[in-house]
Amino acid sequence: MQLTKHHGLGNDFLVLFDLDTALSPRFGADLVRALCDRHRGIGADGLIRVGPATDGADVTMELRNADGSRAEMSGNGIRCLGQAVARARGVDTVDLGVGTDAGLRRLRVRSGAHRDTAWVEVDMGPARPGPGIPARPGLVEAIKTVTVDMGNPHLVLLVDDPSTVELTDLGAACQRVFEQGINVEVVAAVPDQPDTLDLRVWERGVGLTQACGTGACAAASAAHDWGVVGERVRVRMPGGEVDVALGASVTLSGPATFVADIEVPG
Amino acid sequence: MQLTKHHGLGNDFLVLFDLDTALSPRFGADLVRALCDRHRGIGADGLIRVGPATDGADVTMELRNADGSRAEMSGNGIRCLGQAVARARGVDTVDLGVGTDAGLRRLRVRSGAHRDTAWVEVDMGPARPGPGIPARPGLVEAIKTVTVDMGNPHLVLLVDDPSTVELTDLGAACQRVFEQGINVEVVAAVPDQPDTLDLRVWERGVGLTQACGTGACAAASAAHDWGVVGERVRVRMPGGEVDVALGASVTLSGPATFVADIEVPG
Repeated sequence: MQLTKHHGLGNDFLVLFDLDTALSPRFGADLVRALCDRHRGIGADGLIRVGPATDGADVTMELRNADGSRAEMSGNGIRCLGQAVARARGVDTVDLGVGTDAGLRRLRVRSGAHRDTAWVEVDMGPARPGPGIPARPGLVEAIKTVTVDMGNPHLVLLVDDPSTVELTDLGAACQRVFEQGINVEVVAAVPDQPDTLDLRVWERGVGLTQACGTGACAAASAAHDWGVVGERVRVRMPGGEVDVALGASVTLSGPATFVADIEVPG
Repeated sequence: MQLTKHHGLGNDFLVLFDLDTALSPRFGADLVRALCDRHRGIGADGLIRVGPATDGADVTMELRNADGSRAEMSGNGIRCLGQAVARARGVDTVDLGVGTDAGLRRLRVRSGAHRDTAWVEVDMGPARPGPGIPARPGLVEAIKTVTVDMGNPHLVLLVDDPSTVELTDLGAACQRVFEQGINVEVVAAVPDQPDTLDLRVWERGVGLTQACGTGACAAASAAHDWGVVGERVRVRMPGGEVDVALGASVTLSGPATFVADIEVPG
């Protein structure tokens, strides 16, 4: 079985092409967990299966978290998919419609002189109100709290200093409050840097990650609604930065980096 | 650049063949750190460069920890090297002399019907007295404490229950006490199972790992000296079990599992 490994700001994914769906019978949570195991497998935050074209989409994206659970969407993951498709086609640039569980997403891949890193701009769709908050998650003094639906659910908390939040505990606690699980973002405006946010994220089914694309979009949208930033937002995460442009639809721009070609037995 | 990934009981290694030493100019701590990075690289506990034959050795092993530092020896790592050589030669079984920083080591690889896992028996050399203990590491109520030199230095602590030791803190504290750094093992006899030890390990330059081959040998040797076990010892670690046969030289037997063929750019 042939795969590639990529990362978007340290959020790493295995990409598996299955354009003829020949792998479908074997593809499931067990296989994903085995491949994503960081000590007994290759290791990654998730695995993306690239499936055949459907109505309006050039390819489909089936995204699984490292624990085998299905995820609707990942902003870092879809950038990695874009880079993998460009590499597979042997081209530097490509415009692509991607069918995801969260709907059709359009993206544009531009590989620079350094071919291992591509810049990928993704139309992430609208930021919508998220699920109701059944109970206060506690554990953190949030200035404001809101949920955002970016195709997947997010709980965004505006705090004084994201770096001091016990995010592992908070993330776990929120999973007990939200029955379907939720991604958790703690965010603050960066002093003296307009339209810039500091963000840390806990991802449903994964835990702490170095960056989350949908989380960056959700946090930028919430912070804009709170009057903290304008419409073009730079979001700084432990793994690096992305740009978010708000509007009827949210555009996420950031890097995708190729790591390796991989062949596993079986 | 072509590599393979393997693990011995969840202790995972990248193996890089460099029999003509062509890679030498590029091979250093930076490259090792980049490849072993679990989010931006392939990810592994360490990297093994397989070098050319020398006096009495069929190949040489240069072992680096994930942080780029050089390690003299790894019982799990040398089993992975053995499996990699057998695969590269296209054979199921092989007897090999391996030149390591800790001296010549002989090993025997036997691949079973399931080709991805090999059983590897390694002559690990003698267990010798380790470095003096400059100060009590504290942080744990040890029944007995000793250092053992298995080509690399080990601090073995006999405790009531290894599972309850705050091993991350203890491991870090021991690095401040031992100037050259040290591997730290907490060990206890398993009740009602003769000649069986439970072991947890903190590896110098890595941190907590799921299993450590030299640590298993050091712990078995220390426990035998303390009268806790006989000469043939089963050592259970979080990642799985190995067998240790004590004598003038220590023989370590355990599995090595092939994970993937990997090609990275450049």
